[in-house]
Formats: sequence, C-alpha cells, structure tokens
Amino acid sequence: MPNIKLIIQYDGTNYHGWQTQSNAPSIQKIMEDKLSILLNHTITLYGSGRTDAGVHALGQVANFLTDSKLKPGVIQRALNSLLPPDIVIREADEVDEKFHARYRAKSRVYQYLIWNERIPSPFFRRFTWHVTYRLDLEKMQKAALLLTGRHDFSSFQGSDRGETRTVREILSLEIQKKKKLILFSVEANSFLKHMVRNIVGTLVEIGKGKTDLRVFKKVIEARDRTRAGPSAPAHGLFLREVKY
Amino acid sequence: MPNIKLIIQYDGTNYHGWQTQSNAPSIQKIMEDKLSILLNHTITLYGSGRTDAGVHALGQVANFLTDSKLKPGVIQRALNSLLPPDIVIREADEVDEKFHARYRAKSRVYQYLIWNERIPSPFFRRFTWHVTYRLDLEKMQKAALLLTGRHDFSSFQGSDRGETRTVREILSLEIQKKKKLILFSVEANSFLKHMVRNIVGTLVEIGKGKTDLRVFKKVIEARDRTRAGPSAPAHGLFLREVKY
Repeated sequence: MPNIKLIIQYDGTNYHGWQTQSNAPSIQKIMEDKLSILLNHTITLYGSGRTDAGVHALGQVANFLTDSKLKPGVIQRALNSLLPPDIVIREADEVDEKFHARYRAKSRVYQYLIWNERIPSPFFRRFTWHVTYRLDLEKMQKAALLLTGRHDFSSFQGSDRGETRTVREILSLEIQKKKKLILFSVEANSFLKHMVRNIVGTLVEIGKGKTDLRVFKKVIEARDRTRAGPSAPAHGLFLREVKY
Repeated sequence: MPNIKLIIQYDGTNYHGWQTQSNAPSIQKIMEDKLSILLNHTITLYGSGRTDAGVHALGQVANFLTDSKLKPGVIQRALNSLLPPDIVIREADEVDEKFHARYRAKSRVYQYLIWNERIPSPFFRRFTWHVTYRLDLEKMQKAALLLTGRHDFSSFQGSDRGETRTVREILSLEIQKKKKLILFSVEANSFLKHMVRNIVGTLVEIGKGKTDLRVFKKVIEARDRTRAGPSAPAHGLFLREVKY
C-alpha cells in the first residue's frame, strides 16, 4: 500500500495542537477528515510528534497509508484546496513502506521567536513572545553552550510530566538577533514535553540578569523542574524541521 | 489646548478601515472611544487619510486636541493598554497647535506585499496577496518608471469614484524581490481612492506578460478606469509613512 509523506506548515493560533483530542480542533483531526474525504477511505495520519496548543510548524512531517491511486502532487493540491488557509501542505512524496514519521525521525529542529522592544508589534504578535526587557545576548549564548550535548533535562520538562527517561542530546542551540527579533534554534534527537519553552524561559531570565551562569549550572544539575525559569508562551514556538 | 500627534500601527484584518462608519468597527472609532475614556472628554481624531477595509498601517498619523494634563508618553502607554493588540501606538508627541495630520501632510508612502510562490504561506496570508504566476520583475520595474512623475491617474482611480481633480505626482515607485516576497513602495503627494491597489493589479498583469509596455502607456493615457487591470486585494497593502 503506498505510503505518503507530507511536509506541513501551520499557524497554530486557532488549534489545540497537533494531536487529536475529543471536542477540540486539532491539526491532525482536520487533516485526517479531509484526507478521508479525498481518498474515500479512513486515513490515519502518523505525525513526527505532538505540538502543543498554539505552537506553529514550518516543517511538521506526517505519513499515511492509502490504497488510492492519486499521485502525491495531486493529493497535495487537492488537500490544500480542502484545508483552511492556516494549514498548508508544502510537499507530498511517496516513500518506502517502512517510513514512519515518528519512529524514523533522527532529530527535530525547533525555533523560538522573541519580539524584543518596548512597544509590541501588531504584525508579529501571533508568532512572537513580546519581551520588553533588554536582554544580554552574549550571556544567553554562554548559557546555551552549557545546555548543548547530552544531559538529563529533568529541570526543563513539563511540570505535569514525570518521564522516567529524561536524558536527551541537544545537537545545537543557537541564539541570533535580527533587528527587533531574537531567534532561538534548537536541534535535539528528541525533546521532553515543554522542554524548548522551559529552556527559552530560563534563558530569558539569564538575559535579564536575574540568573547568573553559576546558578544556571546548578539548575541543570538539580534535575528539578521547580529550579528552572518560567515556561515561554506557546505562540513563539515553531517546529521547523524533522530530520531522517 | 495641547495638540497630540500619534503614529499608529495596525493589522487591518478585522476592521472596516480607518474611518468611522455606522455599525462597522473602524480604527478611528475604537481609538476615539478609548481616548475619550482615558482623557475624560470627547476626543475627535484627525487621521492623515482613510485606509480601506482590511488595509494595514505601519505608520498612520493622527492628531487630537485635549485639555488633559497627561504627558504624551503616559497617554501612549495607557492607550496601548486599553487598545486591542492589533492596534499599537508607536509614538505620541505634543506638536504645534496648527499641526493637522491630513492638511499638513506633504506625501504618503504605501507598500504592497505579494507572496510569489506556487504554495501559499500560512504565516504571511494576512499580509500578502498570493500570486502563483512567475512575474517578470524587470518588466514591472520599467512600467513603474512610466508611472513616476506627474500624471492624470484617472485610469487607476476607484471605479465608484468620479473625482474631478485626478492629477497626482508619484515621487517614487520601487519594486524589489526578497526571496518569495515582492515589495512595492510608492510615494506620492496624495493618492486617488484605490490608486495603489489598481496600480499593483495592473503591474501584475504586466509581470505575467498579459499586458505589454506599449499597451500600458495607452492605458495611462486613456484616463479610463475600465482600461487598467484588476484591483489588487486590500490585505497586501500598508500605509507605511506620512511625511510632513
């Protein structure tokens, strides 16, 4: 049975995240509904991973099996015309039947955007966290280096989650400033729930001067969620790429 | 009585334009309401000009007279906290009592954004016109030169409007491409209704190869709205700056 891989962009503002939930609109649910209508049988979509409510995607990946004979390019165009304008299929390709968007993923890249000015922007408000404080970029970059590599990230996991396996490997964590935007790019083999948002929230505390690097080292070593900074809001976060 | 000048940004998506209309939310109306509450007397706001329903502003200018003793910086911060997040006051200053945002304006600068790719963008959709055709930038730039200067712009005025004085002076009309975005910047002493959108719509016909430059010259000379191309949609247009 043909296995189709999709690369998907979405503005997550109006959704309760990627994953299907009862009574709440999710991106997966809408896509499964439209694909099932289009291909005339029930479609199950396997995403590379969940994104939380309000989180966006520049390159979410999902796959599904279908007995339809429609070519991927036709599926892409038809699906784009059925989907609401805040969800867009960038690419559709037939892949090996063993491909699975989640289990075959080698790493994920997230980006986080901060609008760093006293006055908010009406144009970037849906896609950035508005931080009015002047942030010390160099200090945040030094802290980012401390997080890079293989660590137990318990201090940065979602407070409602008690995962038993909490070691992850951050392959890169870069912070750049472009005019009023601060852009965080994080690549890891996989992420704990809320990990990127908790890292960004903690790095901002460092950028403000509220936490110094010695204390930050202890926060990492503590393996205790209550020691790190607050979580950055969902609407600044984008799943940028999934690598296979 | 102190005369306060405001520089205003707005995402026009949810408004019926700048100007107060009965039964429809306008930016002017919301701002007058909030200012009247804040300053405790009825405020009349004089804008530099109307923007149509759905049009955005990076630098709309307006002024109002008040007997309040609040400093402009305080008015700005309080007003930003009262306004919805799609309207933001960038600057507030006390100006000469003779200043009038409309009558004192020397020129206006508009920009228009096109998203030029086969696939739409969920992130730019509110702020760009999605044009899938490949556009010949050089040809559009040549046509833009023909429009620059002092002309009778009857061919580019709103079809519902029969203005008697239709000569305007375009000081500059530039077209740049930045990755998938095409950016038009137009400065003129003043504009006829729908003039920028009609110019952009006609230039796109030229970029597609549907109209050549000889025909375009005749369109300008015809002084007849029915001869120019279709109007570009409102949501790609921004009032960028008003010069005094």
